[in-house]
Amino acid sequence: MTADRPEPIHDLAHLGIHGILSPTPDETIGYFHDLLGMDVVAQDGDSTYLRSFNTYETWTIKITAADRAGLEYVSWRMDSPQALERRVRWLEENGFAGRWVDPDQGIGPAYEFLDPDGHPFRIYWETEVYVAPDDKKPVIPTNFQAYVGRGANVKHLDHVNLLARDVRRCRQFWEDGFGIRTYETILMPDGVKEAGAWMSSTLQGHELIYTAEKTTGSGRLHHFAYAVESREEVLRAADIMADARIYIEAGPSKHTAIQGFYLYTREPGGNRIEVANGGYFRFAPDAETYVWTADEWKLKPGWGAPIPPEFHVYGTPVVEELAEDAAQVPVLGPADL
Amino acid sequence: MTADRPEPIHDLAHLGIHGILSPTPDETIGYFHDLLGMDVVAQDGDSTYLRSFNTYETWTIKITAADRAGLEYVSWRMDSPQALERRVRWLEENGFAGRWVDPDQGIGPAYEFLDPDGHPFRIYWETEVYVAPDDKKPVIPTNFQAYVGRGANVKHLDHVNLLARDVRRCRQFWEDGFGIRTYETILMPDGVKEAGAWMSSTLQGHELIYTAEKTTGSGRLHHFAYAVESREEVLRAADIMADARIYIEAGPSKHTAIQGFYLYTREPGGNRIEVANGGYFRFAPDAETYVWTADEWKLKPGWGAPIPPEFHVYGTPVVEELAEDAAQVPVLGPADL
Amino acid sequence: MTADRPEPIHDLAHLGIHGILSPTPDETIGYFHDLLGMDVVAQDGDSTYLRSFNTYETWTIKITAADRAGLEYVSWRMDSPQALERRVRWLEENGFAGRWVDPDQGIGPAYEFLDPDGHPFRIYWETEVYVAPDDKKPVIPTNFQAYVGRGANVKHLDHVNLLARDVRRCRQFWEDGFGIRTYETILMPDGVKEAGAWMSSTLQGHELIYTAEKTTGSGRLHHFAYAVESREEVLRAADIMADARIYIEAGPSKHTAIQGFYLYTREPGGNRIEVANGGYFRFAPDAETYVWTADEWKLKPGWGAPIPPEFHVYGTPVVEELAEDAAQVPVLGPADL
Amino acid sequence: MTADRPEPIHDLAHLGIHGILSPTPDETIGYFHDLLGMDVVAQDGDSTYLRSFNTYETWTIKITAADRAGLEYVSWRMDSPQALERRVRWLEENGFAGRWVDPDQGIGPAYEFLDPDGHPFRIYWETEVYVAPDDKKPVIPTNFQAYVGRGANVKHLDHVNLLARDVRRCRQFWEDGFGIRTYETILMPDGVKEAGAWMSSTLQGHELIYTAEKTTGSGRLHHFAYAVESREEVLRAADIMADARIYIEAGPSKHTAIQGFYLYTREPGGNRIEVANGGYFRFAPDAETYVWTADEWKLKPGWGAPIPPEFHVYGTPVVEELAEDAAQVPVLGPADL
Repeated sequence: MTADRPEPIHDLAHLGIHGILSPTPDETIGYFHDLLGMDVVAQDGDSTYLRSFNTYETWTIKITAADRAGLEYVSWRMDSPQALERRVRWLEENGFAGRWVDPDQGIGPAYEFLDPDGHPFRIYWETEVYVAPDDKKPVIPTNFQAYVGRGANVKHLDHVNLLARDVRRCRQFWEDGFGIRTYETILMPDGVKEAGAWMSSTLQGHELIYTAEKTTGSGRLHHFAYAVESREEVLRAADIMADARIYIEAGPSKHTAIQGFYLYTREPGGNRIEVANGGYFRFAPDAETYVWTADEWKLKPGWGAPIPPEFHVYGTPVVEELAEDAAQVPVLGPADL
Repeated sequence: MTADRPEPIHDLAHLGIHGILSPTPDETIGYFHDLLGMDVVAQDGDSTYLRSFNTYETWTIKITAADRAGLEYVSWRMDSPQALERRVRWLEENGFAGRWVDPDQGIGPAYEFLDPDGHPFRIYWETEVYVAPDDKKPVIPTNFQAYVGRGANVKHLDHVNLLARDVRRCRQFWEDGFGIRTYETILMPDGVKEAGAWMSSTLQGHELIYTAEKTTGSGRLHHFAYAVESREEVLRAADIMADARIYIEAGPSKHTAIQGFYLYTREPGGNRIEVANGGYFRFAPDAETYVWTADEWKLKPGWGAPIPPEFHVYGTPVVEELAEDAAQVPVLGPADL
Repeated sequence: MTADRPEPIHDLAHLGIHGILSPTPDETIGYFHDLLGMDVVAQDGDSTYLRSFNTYETWTIKITAADRAGLEYVSWRMDSPQALERRVRWLEENGFAGRWVDPDQGIGPAYEFLDPDGHPFRIYWETEVYVAPDDKKPVIPTNFQAYVGRGANVKHLDHVNLLARDVRRCRQFWEDGFGIRTYETILMPDGVKEAGAWMSSTLQGHELIYTAEKTTGSGRLHHFAYAVESREEVLRAADIMADARIYIEAGPSKHTAIQGFYLYTREPGGNRIEVANGGYFRFAPDAETYVWTADEWKLKPGWGAPIPPEFHVYGTPVVEELAEDAAQVPVLGPADL
Repeated sequence: MTADRPEPIHDLAHLGIHGILSPTPDETIGYFHDLLGMDVVAQDGDSTYLRSFNTYETWTIKITAADRAGLEYVSWRMDSPQALERRVRWLEENGFAGRWVDPDQGIGPAYEFLDPDGHPFRIYWETEVYVAPDDKKPVIPTNFQAYVGRGANVKHLDHVNLLARDVRRCRQFWEDGFGIRTYETILMPDGVKEAGAWMSSTLQGHELIYTAEKTTGSGRLHHFAYAVESREEVLRAADIMADARIYIEAGPSKHTAIQGFYLYTREPGGNRIEVANGGYFRFAPDAETYVWTADEWKLKPGWGAPIPPEFHVYGTPVVEELAEDAAQVPVLGPADL
């Protein structure tokens, strides 16, 4: 906690709107509406926009028909217009120049660029605050809309997990360019490469996660996670998903990294979706990154169910071919993320 | 725990199907369907039958259009056909003769009679086990139907609370005639009359409650209570009810008697409905009734929110005129039930 | 639901006091006191008696120093003195004669006998209701003692799971002799032998479980389970156990059979102990046993973490040698109990 | 969301260490240790330092013997040394000059100053990260210490509520000088004075609250609130507090402002202490303050138990004399904070 560290950057406000692709858009929308409990708020061509009830912006996720599942883009809302301007400048001066894109259903304009693994990101300042129609007005005016009470009843986006061939490089990109805080990383057995990194722009333990890509793909999505009110609601979500015959890949259980309580399913289009609660908060502005060695990680401290091997390979779009150096990526053991 | 006490009677199996009347049947059905999360399973004339997802019988409650709210009947399923026969005999030999009524949507035949305050009760043996249609088949075959995940998501009937001019007489009727166990009573200041009695045929702390009627009415309903999985779900139900602009009369909080966690609302037709979780179990077959004196009760041990005075007067059908001796019925203080 | 079935027997009131053996009694007592939150209430020679705060009897479990872990005895409190007498008569007339044993710390006299696998059981009527000392008086007089708030804070015994070479025979012993209700069984691939049976004397989904013994041992204990208030408290117990470096064998997760939420640990003496919440209630007095075929069971419907193979072999006392026909006992798959 | 708003200030990291005074220090320490579950970590003269298990700093609260209850000081940890310097400069240039005080048990140096109502605040940068002794090492190294599992088991300081004769002036002091975000205020009937203001330096709905002082006192403490993991744990805390015969002033229930779930007790020395969970998060960096008119506030939207009138008057040190203009301060109605 020395006095000569650079001052923290606070230009990212929070993870924002995001888009996924689905080869079965109707079923995917059904999953988000009926099972996650989101509301459809707009439609535009092949895209449908839905919102979770505790999102202050007009919409949360955009689902677009496509020939295969995957990520359309992730975004960050910025802390101020000046912050947006500063970060665009940094991107352009550091070889990550992108392009301005028009507002998407009223949110933006946004600057779109690629992270080092090729995932499209957007950053924006302008947004509209949701105004509920009369039949969805909440009784407490500080809420954004009436309680939905349908399915898993997710509140808002919690975090996103992307796959990356070079986790370390992606992490450093966000640290250098955006001042993001990294709370945990896991080293590979070589002691240099990274198997995972958990990052946040707020005191929440994770907003952005990278884990190692083991296939020949790039720019792939591991999962989006939506928050529910309590661990009880994660358990409840498992009942809902099981009876709806949705594939449950892992959980409900608790992660060792960040210690969130999780349930992993695949929406009908193939994208992995988590229903999440908790994860620690890091109040210290100078919290040091906890670096797990590969050996230490294998000891699996704490509790938590075993995670199936596919959890470390599967992503969208689906890529079958393993990378040549995939063997070097440790097959993490039980309870390993 | 002497050896010469009579053997316990186990002729009641559990509270069963029940019916309420509503002057606004459509809105009442909407409340049970949308907000409590029950499914409509049958319709017959002015009556609609709904089931909660964890009920093994084909239906749970029957809502019938009427000019005013109130109770149609409460029932018990009996432990065996012989038990049914024995209890009918007891009723007929002890001045409570009733009549046999035809099966109601496949459940029954039932013997209908009145308790000492005039509430219609039915007892029956024959019932059908619910078989879920294909789109509601639960993934675990020991469940009765797929998880509903709509609104408060009630599981099954928990208990019923009736108002009675003479609580003591009603209590003794059930003890003498059916061997019901009484876990708690509250004495009025005269030390003789009773302000409330909590009874059960199982280890659950309450199935049948009588509390003192303060109006000139009789045969009135105080409330039906439906169980949810956890206290978290009672809190969640409060969010749902508040945003649906349903009148919340009391709670969420915890009762002193039996110690259940409660939320009291009025369904649009005016009947008071509780969403409930918990309450202690009494494992001892010879558990003694705990008798609260009026003075002890006023000390309000434990925690729990104040209950509004109307809670002790309002019932359905609504009766405005207070009984002459209503003043003798203690206006119970905060946290008093 | 025919009328000619024999009437249900209600002679068992609930699982009662029980004893375990420990080669490390001090550490075992420490586990029950510090981590489960029980209080020590008596000491007698090599035996220490502890109670959980929601037990109405004076004590719950007796821990006795021994050269190896295992079961001392399990017991049932009976529904009446007449019920005790009736069941003793049945035992004596059916080849299971045992002997009367003196009260154990005031509870009893008890009739001790062996089940078909050799586990010692006791049945008794006389018991003393716990009277809390002044510093443990609960504020609500219908509680038995003040809330403990230490460690996992278990309420009372929930169920016991015993290993048996012949599950079917043990199940039939209890059904024939005591009228116990069997809610679920699992068949072995031969379609005749049973891999498990879940039984209860009340509406609780399980009080007594038998699962298949795969070693050459007999009379072995699989686990005792203690109830906590909520699934949240099972999760909390896992944090407590993990940080206390207690071995967590499985969970927290949810069983398919009876659907209880579980955490399995080994107390320092080696006995498996579960912290449990939930499991369904069976209200129907004529609920049919659900019989799982081996094939159906392997489909693992619902959700729940994989259970390690040792869960199906380990018991106390520890026996290393597998039975010759152990291979015929299916190694149940993930989420299999 | 215009582009010409000044950029947000991020100089406050989080509420930090704090001190209270107690006329009965032993009993107060007993309350914090036994009932809240904190550990004693240091002793210095009349002061005892305790920590909650999820605090990353070496200690959380300092309890000092005094002739009456009250606040010793509240503090903020700053976001950087530069942030500390900037804020000291602002204070000195704006008429709030204070003084530098030596580190308190290793935390600091700190700059101490008074808010407009006379409450002592400290701001500091330097702090030590807690290193658990061997017997309290957590099994997961990203935790700060092993799970305590004693009493209410509080995690960390959640927020502080101070009383102020001029809420508006205090609020503006923090907004102008520190860029704190105000999420809600309540206007008095005159439409100008404020009855309460809820402020935060993070996305948490409240860290610092001011409510109207109705007595002739100043610099008084309304309450400190400590966070627990879930609403279930707030309910559990109520059981613990009730059985320990601690005075429960209000709750468990849910506030309308910020919507946190609360339990208010008085520690034996007289200071009001809250066990808290939840409250909304405000992700929007430009979230507008919600301003409740007095009339709107009286409609009590949502649910929540009535709060006793003393809640709006009592603070520490205790002052009996009401201010002359106390009548102008609305006696807020049920569920009113």
